[in-house]
Amino acid sequence: MPELAMDDIFARGRDVLASQPFSVLLGTELLVLEAGRAELRIPIREELAQQHGFVHGGVLSYAADNALTFAGGTALGPAVVTSEFKINYVRPAIGESIVARAVVVHAGRNQAVCRCDVFVFRDGQEILCATAQGTIAVRQG
Amino acid sequence: MPELAMDDIFARGRDVLASQPFSVLLGTELLVLEAGRAELRIPIREELAQQHGFVHGGVLSYAADNALTFAGGTALGPAVVTSEFKINYVRPAIGESIVARAVVVHAGRNQAVCRCDVFVFRDGQEILCATAQGTIAVRQG
Amino acid sequence: MPELAMDDIFARGRDVLASQPFSVLLGTELLVLEAGRAELRIPIREELAQQHGFVHGGVLSYAADNALTFAGGTALGPAVVTSEFKINYVRPAIGESIVARAVVVHAGRNQAVCRCDVFVFRDGQEILCATAQGTIAVRQG
Amino acid sequence: MPELAMDDIFARGRDVLASQPFSVLLGTELLVLEAGRAELRIPIREELAQQHGFVHGGVLSYAADNALTFAGGTALGPAVVTSEFKINYVRPAIGESIVARAVVVHAGRNQAVCRCDVFVFRDGQEILCATAQGTIAVRQG
Repeated sequence: MPELAMDDIFARGRDVLASQPFSVLLGTELLVLEAGRAELRIPIREELAQQHGFVHGGVLSYAADNALTFAGGTALGPAVVTSEFKINYVRPAIGESIVARAVVVHAGRNQAVCRCDVFVFRDGQEILCATAQGTIAVRQG
Repeated sequence: MPELAMDDIFARGRDVLASQPFSVLLGTELLVLEAGRAELRIPIREELAQQHGFVHGGVLSYAADNALTFAGGTALGPAVVTSEFKINYVRPAIGESIVARAVVVHAGRNQAVCRCDVFVFRDGQEILCATAQGTIAVRQG
Repeated sequence: MPELAMDDIFARGRDVLASQPFSVLLGTELLVLEAGRAELRIPIREELAQQHGFVHGGVLSYAADNALTFAGGTALGPAVVTSEFKINYVRPAIGESIVARAVVVHAGRNQAVCRCDVFVFRDGQEILCATAQGTIAVRQG
Repeated sequence: MPELAMDDIFARGRDVLASQPFSVLLGTELLVLEAGRAELRIPIREELAQQHGFVHGGVLSYAADNALTFAGGTALGPAVVTSEFKINYVRPAIGESIVARAVVVHAGRNQAVCRCDVFVFRDGQEILCATAQGTIAVRQG
């Protein structure tokens, strides 16, 4: 396969995101997609909250999962899935938007280990609210 | 605090779930909540899919996270949060509904370690699609 | 490859363990190895302690890692490695021996997801001190 | 408690390490211990190998666990334990020594989330062989 130019990688990533109904439901936007790196944003709205008004942990874990997969895909190609990940929540997420930033830590032929920090933007500040690590794998079959 | 009868635990859990806008958005139902055990169901609909038509991994991780927290809450009381968890995806989720079943493995005073299996129901069969393990903690402050 | 009889699986596992110098250093014994299941024991001695006299967490994580790999190997064949795992420590390990019991939760062609409970034996009782979950993969190349 | 000067933190850390019989058995040395950061080294010798001659994964997980705890201790005080961690192995460890470098990602009052990269040193190069993330907690009771 011919190498994709940067713009193509980003455009293709945006198309993949737009073809995920769950990402559309959550309002996820692709901010960055380039070799070894992906960044997603989710505007915070009331529907994403848990019972105390913070963003639900499930939104943060979705954001981490998806950003890890997009980052891994820049190393492994577009046909990838998340094999596994772990996430630590470190602060309640209250603010205007969630940004998940993932990087590839190591890529082999069939899988990549990636990390992701999830931030909340509030009053012009970015605040770490979760951090994740996981394995992205080339889709079988 | 006086001990809650089983029915009260379940009723309270249902109220907590109904007060989570994100759980309402996803259509999550509480099936079981009793000492050391929680079970949640999410009817599958197109909005929950990723680009290949399977349920998005973020829905499974949300289901695991929430079931872990509900199970942990039966041991620690209602004011709990997920500290961290890890999830392994083992099969694509295609079917009619997702069921997440969590149990408490060990509970101390301030935190509980729980496990959760996530199944998809398809044509009358239940099929494991993910498995998770994590820590639930009493909410600080 | 012809199917191995149970006794052969156990005998082969014992040989693998004996060929791991680190397992010999720690004194690890194979108790059980059969389809989908492995059990290892480590007699506790002072050299395995941390500063408070408990068994060092690193011994428990080694035991979990190795038991996960042995269990995974019963599903995938002997040429396997641990890709990743997570462990939660739930109680200090004080007693006569450590036993790590791993089971296969799901096995595909190239990898298996396994779980492991680590117990300490003390005064005739077995007490859970850690629990782990991880991915075992067929060795590449 | 009066603040410890940097030299005191390092000296105290070296004493803790020397008081862990398992760390003495493995030959672990403290290279760095300062606010938010710890670095441990383990000279590789045959006793630490698995059956293919690589350093056993259990040695890497021990190194990660211990480095995470030391890093967390710089934020939380010396009476800390590892609550949980996950580790991804990315390359076989073959070389002269293992170095585990941990940093604090977020510290609260009672627990800290830390990350650790584990390198092998070979022929003057440092090569990432594992990466870990976990929770360090103040010891209860």
